[in-house]
Amino acid sequence: MASKKGKKYVFFFRPGKAEGKGNNKNLLGGKGAGLAEMCNLGIPVPSGFTISTEACIYYFKNGNKWPVGLQQEVDKNMAKLESGMGARFGDRDNPLLVSVRSGARASMPGMMDTVLNLGLNDKTIAGLIKRTDNPRFVYDSYRRFIHMFSDVVLGVEKALFEKELSALKQAKGVDLDMQLDADALIHLCERYKEIFKAHTGKEFPQDPKKQLQMAINAVFGSWNNKRAKDYRRLYNIPEDWGTAVNVQAMVFGNSGDKSGTGVAFTRSPSTGENVFFGEFLVNAQGEDVVAGIRTPLSIDGMGKTFPQAADKLRAIAKRLENHYRDMLDLEFTIQEETLYMLQSRVGKRTAASAIKIAHDMVQEKRIKREEAVLRIHPSQIDQLLHKTIDPKATLEVLTTGLPASPGAAVGRVVFSSEEAIELHAKGEPALLVRYETSPEDLAGMSASEGILTVHGGMTSHAAVVARGMGKCCVAGAGEIEMDEEDKTFSVKGVTVRAGDWLTLDGSAGRVILGSTDLVSPTLTGEFGTIMQWADKFRRLKIRANADTPEDATLARKFGAEGIGLCRTEHMFFAEDRILAVRQMIVSDTDDQRAVALQKLLPMQKNDFIGILEAMQGLPVTIRLLDPPLHEFLPKTKASIEKVAEEMGISADAVERRVEALSEANPMLGHRGCRLGITLSAIYEMQVRAIFEATAELKKRKVDARPEVMIPLVGIKKELEICKEMVIRVGKEVQKAEGVKFPIEVGTMIELPRACLVADQIAEEAEFFSFGTNDLTQTTLGLSRDDAGSFLPHYVERGILPYDPFASIDEEGVGSLMKLGIQKGRKVKPKLKIGICGEHGGDPRSVSFCHAVGLNYVSCSPYRVPIARLAAAHAALGEKRK
Amino acid sequence: MASKKGKKYVFFFRPGKAEGKGNNKNLLGGKGAGLAEMCNLGIPVPSGFTISTEACIYYFKNGNKWPVGLQQEVDKNMAKLESGMGARFGDRDNPLLVSVRSGARASMPGMMDTVLNLGLNDKTIAGLIKRTDNPRFVYDSYRRFIHMFSDVVLGVEKALFEKELSALKQAKGVDLDMQLDADALIHLCERYKEIFKAHTGKEFPQDPKKQLQMAINAVFGSWNNKRAKDYRRLYNIPEDWGTAVNVQAMVFGNSGDKSGTGVAFTRSPSTGENVFFGEFLVNAQGEDVVAGIRTPLSIDGMGKTFPQAADKLRAIAKRLENHYRDMLDLEFTIQEETLYMLQSRVGKRTAASAIKIAHDMVQEKRIKREEAVLRIHPSQIDQLLHKTIDPKATLEVLTTGLPASPGAAVGRVVFSSEEAIELHAKGEPALLVRYETSPEDLAGMSASEGILTVHGGMTSHAAVVARGMGKCCVAGAGEIEMDEEDKTFSVKGVTVRAGDWLTLDGSAGRVILGSTDLVSPTLTGEFGTIMQWADKFRRLKIRANADTPEDATLARKFGAEGIGLCRTEHMFFAEDRILAVRQMIVSDTDDQRAVALQKLLPMQKNDFIGILEAMQGLPVTIRLLDPPLHEFLPKTKASIEKVAEEMGISADAVERRVEALSEANPMLGHRGCRLGITLSAIYEMQVRAIFEATAELKKRKVDARPEVMIPLVGIKKELEICKEMVIRVGKEVQKAEGVKFPIEVGTMIELPRACLVADQIAEEAEFFSFGTNDLTQTTLGLSRDDAGSFLPHYVERGILPYDPFASIDEEGVGSLMKLGIQKGRKVKPKLKIGICGEHGGDPRSVSFCHAVGLNYVSCSPYRVPIARLAAAHAALGEKRK
Repeated sequence: MASKKGKKYVFFFRPGKAEGKGNNKNLLGGKGAGLAEMCNLGIPVPSGFTISTEACIYYFKNGNKWPVGLQQEVDKNMAKLESGMGARFGDRDNPLLVSVRSGARASMPGMMDTVLNLGLNDKTIAGLIKRTDNPRFVYDSYRRFIHMFSDVVLGVEKALFEKELSALKQAKGVDLDMQLDADALIHLCERYKEIFKAHTGKEFPQDPKKQLQMAINAVFGSWNNKRAKDYRRLYNIPEDWGTAVNVQAMVFGNSGDKSGTGVAFTRSPSTGENVFFGEFLVNAQGEDVVAGIRTPLSIDGMGKTFPQAADKLRAIAKRLENHYRDMLDLEFTIQEETLYMLQSRVGKRTAASAIKIAHDMVQEKRIKREEAVLRIHPSQIDQLLHKTIDPKATLEVLTTGLPASPGAAVGRVVFSSEEAIELHAKGEPALLVRYETSPEDLAGMSASEGILTVHGGMTSHAAVVARGMGKCCVAGAGEIEMDEEDKTFSVKGVTVRAGDWLTLDGSAGRVILGSTDLVSPTLTGEFGTIMQWADKFRRLKIRANADTPEDATLARKFGAEGIGLCRTEHMFFAEDRILAVRQMIVSDTDDQRAVALQKLLPMQKNDFIGILEAMQGLPVTIRLLDPPLHEFLPKTKASIEKVAEEMGISADAVERRVEALSEANPMLGHRGCRLGITLSAIYEMQVRAIFEATAELKKRKVDARPEVMIPLVGIKKELEICKEMVIRVGKEVQKAEGVKFPIEVGTMIELPRACLVADQIAEEAEFFSFGTNDLTQTTLGLSRDDAGSFLPHYVERGILPYDPFASIDEEGVGSLMKLGIQKGRKVKPKLKIGICGEHGGDPRSVSFCHAVGLNYVSCSPYRVPIARLAAAHAALGEKRK
Repeated sequence: MASKKGKKYVFFFRPGKAEGKGNNKNLLGGKGAGLAEMCNLGIPVPSGFTISTEACIYYFKNGNKWPVGLQQEVDKNMAKLESGMGARFGDRDNPLLVSVRSGARASMPGMMDTVLNLGLNDKTIAGLIKRTDNPRFVYDSYRRFIHMFSDVVLGVEKALFEKELSALKQAKGVDLDMQLDADALIHLCERYKEIFKAHTGKEFPQDPKKQLQMAINAVFGSWNNKRAKDYRRLYNIPEDWGTAVNVQAMVFGNSGDKSGTGVAFTRSPSTGENVFFGEFLVNAQGEDVVAGIRTPLSIDGMGKTFPQAADKLRAIAKRLENHYRDMLDLEFTIQEETLYMLQSRVGKRTAASAIKIAHDMVQEKRIKREEAVLRIHPSQIDQLLHKTIDPKATLEVLTTGLPASPGAAVGRVVFSSEEAIELHAKGEPALLVRYETSPEDLAGMSASEGILTVHGGMTSHAAVVARGMGKCCVAGAGEIEMDEEDKTFSVKGVTVRAGDWLTLDGSAGRVILGSTDLVSPTLTGEFGTIMQWADKFRRLKIRANADTPEDATLARKFGAEGIGLCRTEHMFFAEDRILAVRQMIVSDTDDQRAVALQKLLPMQKNDFIGILEAMQGLPVTIRLLDPPLHEFLPKTKASIEKVAEEMGISADAVERRVEALSEANPMLGHRGCRLGITLSAIYEMQVRAIFEATAELKKRKVDARPEVMIPLVGIKKELEICKEMVIRVGKEVQKAEGVKFPIEVGTMIELPRACLVADQIAEEAEFFSFGTNDLTQTTLGLSRDDAGSFLPHYVERGILPYDPFASIDEEGVGSLMKLGIQKGRKVKPKLKIGICGEHGGDPRSVSFCHAVGLNYVSCSPYRVPIARLAAAHAALGEKRK
């Protein structure tokens, strides 16, 4: 039917001409589009064809059936390929071999499957040996093919083949695969076929057409393997995109010492330096590089062996970079000294690299500032905002590896992903130490602070994934001797055990014994310049959530334009005041309570002086006490007794109060303004502290700008009552101190009801601040503390597209926000509205906040630059529309 | 200023002519409007004037100041009254005395204050004695005046005067006030004035003008006394209505044996019988009747002494009833054999009386059926739906009193309101036993199952209030000897102690020892007829919430048109299955869980057979498991051990599971469809049980109509997944049993998000049922279990107009409901939508549900008739508009 409609599923390409277009990634996938573009530019690329993502989508929607006509299209294109290559698929004398590779719209490195050397069978190897006169190469290709096909297409355990290979190398007394001779490889191929039969019950398939069909289906199917699904979830790639399949004539990097294969970047993916960068393995096929098993040559090293090919590669790289106006990631193979390009795509890079490249390309007048800002993904710069090792620290450097992903990390050593996840779940930092990582390790890497590998280079799996995640990584630290069984590793006699503390310096590749002090990053140089450009484009103001003068100072350094949320309760937990807080709570009478509050007043006042001074000239939104009182009381018998003793009352009395205050659902209990109304002395003390601090600073000519925020308002009258008190106390302080200052009162909008009656509430409020954490909890009826038992399952199963505590649930919470904004502004068109939930630092949520017309977002100090950039993206994205 | 605008605050009335109109209750209050109407009908009423509610509202809004001009208006009207009565206020020879009474828009019997005999002072008594030649009467009036004025106007403790009076009666060896002679009363007046001085520091005010001013202010102020506020909260009377004040020339029922005072009802307020009914006290003033201290004469008894006045009263009553077309409550005084009417208003009545009167008036062709239905307040019929004593029970009747308020009650004896409240709070039924009740007892009466008094008649405070509350009451059980100190009472040697069980039969006035079986009411006779009329008018369907066949049968008897909510978890708690439920929960593996579920399947199937059979031909909405699993596990160490033993596993294992399942906020946790999705075997078992039950009934030709309801859906996909399973299992059962039945799946809408994406959810749902309990909790962020610490305060302070768990919060929850309905019906215009929260039985909420276009409400079986009536009211109210 699809065929009758004339739908074309297959697109041919050969150097000089491709049916597909380079900008049609949606149809051809990233790899297919890149190959088409290179062909159209006349760059040497092995010919082949791309089966479109539409074919894949059809396949999934129709019970794993190909669309009508696809088989004919594939056959027609294979025939075209045969005639172009002068070889025939399955021919005994001159067999055509092909690679079958996945290629989705978005790059998902290593996540989906590839089969190389397809077309080999017991008969075609004979022809190939005759043509190449290189039996070692042919059997090497065959064993690779059997291994890959068995694994990818039929799911035969990889380890079975690897074990066989290791045993063989040991028997032959060699270290590397390439040292095995033809006889050894002939033997290996036979063993591999036996393994295949033992595990599938069938002979290894000999019909190349059948092999191709099975491989295409396997590549389609690999879209849905666990790794790929995990990756998509992590990077928010839609499930329904599907993958394209690229079938391409093989060129052989493993055909001898005049061949090889490599990857390159047109600039440094790690630092962004404008230096051509690459890695090359002689006599190898692509998977050898990516897997990181052998340590590769640099591009310069390759130039010594293959000067012509190296020059040609540099020239092509330059041409492609000019064409794409961006740093590119290239894959190439050299077969008998001839260069073939296998892939060209915009290269993944660290945040530092992204910033340098974007900055430099503006200097080079290749791109505009808008483009430069848009090229830095907000979530990516998170890695620049991570800490580095304190330059003043004394370090005991154990060994050094490759600086595979920048930043520093301190954690406890684990040797498996499972242990990393376990430790992380306990709230302890893990450092994952592995020979090498594989896509199976994704979750474990995500749970670790940093990754250390013994094998592999800068483009090894560990390095690529760690950079993508913004995790620190040291790769290829070859001095390390692992004893995975014993859960230890040692370097030159020093043994590190599981659980020991270790520090990694991903920027310098250093592995340091013990736990080391880290220092906070700053925004300077090119980063600072790009952030300044971003600031010009954005409309949203960015504030920070900060409870201490230190946090406030840091936030300001990171560009915060105010404090959006200063939580007063964090101050209550300080050691010097928790006792007074508890006395206040345990008080039986208003008089007793007043005494305790009187002790707290000067402490709170000092807190506010510190924060208001740090933020002078900028607004500081101070939220009055929010959590239920029982949060401040001890829970266990022992701690109750201790508190009782400190307070000089009986443990019974404390226990009774704990009991009386305990709640079935504290999230929905006696907290926020409900406390402020029923126990008004607490709020009154806090407000007095705020205004006394303000008055004192005013006297010292410090421009303090507090805004008093009332939490958990759902009813206009609640705000009315609290506001009345704030204004009264404010005026009392003004009178007593003889100083004038503005008294500004607003509210958090964190209950569905507050959004629904926002018009009424706006009559009393000078500002709204969406508390999207609680608003998410109430709108979805989802306790953040308890959601662990089902929310991950929901996200995994696609019931929710993502964790609503990480990104605003736009359909639910977002539509309540829109309602609240619309109703609030109907009454007060200039009402200042912000957000102070943790969503304020999430790029997707920032974009939403821009779209719905908020005035500001507020987030943790470390995420302020991310929010600044995300806000610029939102504004620029809107402009483009 | 008000006066300049020409605003009139005072309205004069005299027989034959009133300035005010009888239908203007808002301005004149109920009493003032009734007096005006009687005057306009030419009925003998002592002349006087009404100060409007607007004056009172002005007074409160302006710091307790009278509006400009009010004093002049009062003076002018007093002058008019003086000239009409031929007496002068404060005159030594012929003094005018007046009563000052409150009168709000809605009747609030006994809640606000009254001052009689105002105008008396040490000088005017002399003139009055001269004119009446009855010093005893004059001093009796004076002592009443001093007592009332001191209490009402200046807040001097009433008990001080009562103690003095008691002491005097004892000293004189008499039982009744009326037996005290003039000398004794002279002495009493002196003592009263001394008490006044001792407690106010001032002489008793002698200037009648001043007395009047103070009394008017006191009546205004009584609008805000605690009793009145409590009453308004109980009956949802707005705080801002204010009260009118009626100043009226005194006529004296206490001027001797040819005088008296009484109250009457044109039909029985207790049964509705068309019999003139009243009570009369010779030589008494109004408060003697209302207080219930002396047991009064019947109207027939009064006819013997005052035949002419009695005939006249009957004639006036008939004329007024014809005029108002309703049963009236009359107050009158006879002074020297001349009848004066003091009040006429629509009479309060029991539900049974209301029904009989409404029914009879339709038969008499005085009102239409619509009017009859509208005259029965839905919340009122609650009392008809209470239980009565099982006729088969053997009763040990201790004594008998007046059948003051119908119904039966079983409870434990308490002797004070405080104890009643305490016992009630513990979840135990209290029976309040008192000499007599006063407005201070309101809260205690509300907390009791029934009230028993030693003194007082059918119109005593206890009787009137109990009828209003729909509580059973036996009044005037004079055989009882109270020992309040000892907390016991005894009758003929049988002693009953505080805490003992007692049964009251309010319909027959019987007091029965011990706890007695009660039986459920039925809807028959006139009640049934009115309910049938109501059914004709309503548009909403009424369903019931029922979990057992017994409840379902009862609901059907009460007119339920289906089950709106059958909670499956209540079945889980039954003794014969809780063990299997716990095994299911504690299971470590799916296999273990399957074994436990297999045990539960036949039990659940039998439950459903019972309910579906009871409701055959009507829909039964069955909600799948909703609460979190930890609700089914034991909490204490001892019970954990017991369960472990029963289950044959270690206490540790049980404890670990309890620990693992515990949640910070269970209300927002792992429950509802979240369980059904993550542990799908549980839902699958339940669905299988439902459909196997259906299949079995279908085979027996029973028309079973289950509807499967998925709880806590907030995301379309949740419903999609559950629905898929329900349909699959349904088809499996159909195939296995060879029976066809419709498979209907819908969802509860109980999360804000569900309302916000109701259009998406509607695509998967065949019906919506609003779970307004949970929707209220999430929309307001208010845990029902924890709200006790602040919600009462919120309602008291007017932050919320009423408890949102009792009546739907229309602004918040209601607007989400409207959104959900609108979005749902946009996708499916015929979507069936109901409500199954407890609001389904609340008349105000039913009215809201009608207005927003729901198809049905579902409530507890006992409230089904209330909902039927409320639905009719809503439809009729809409028609009137």
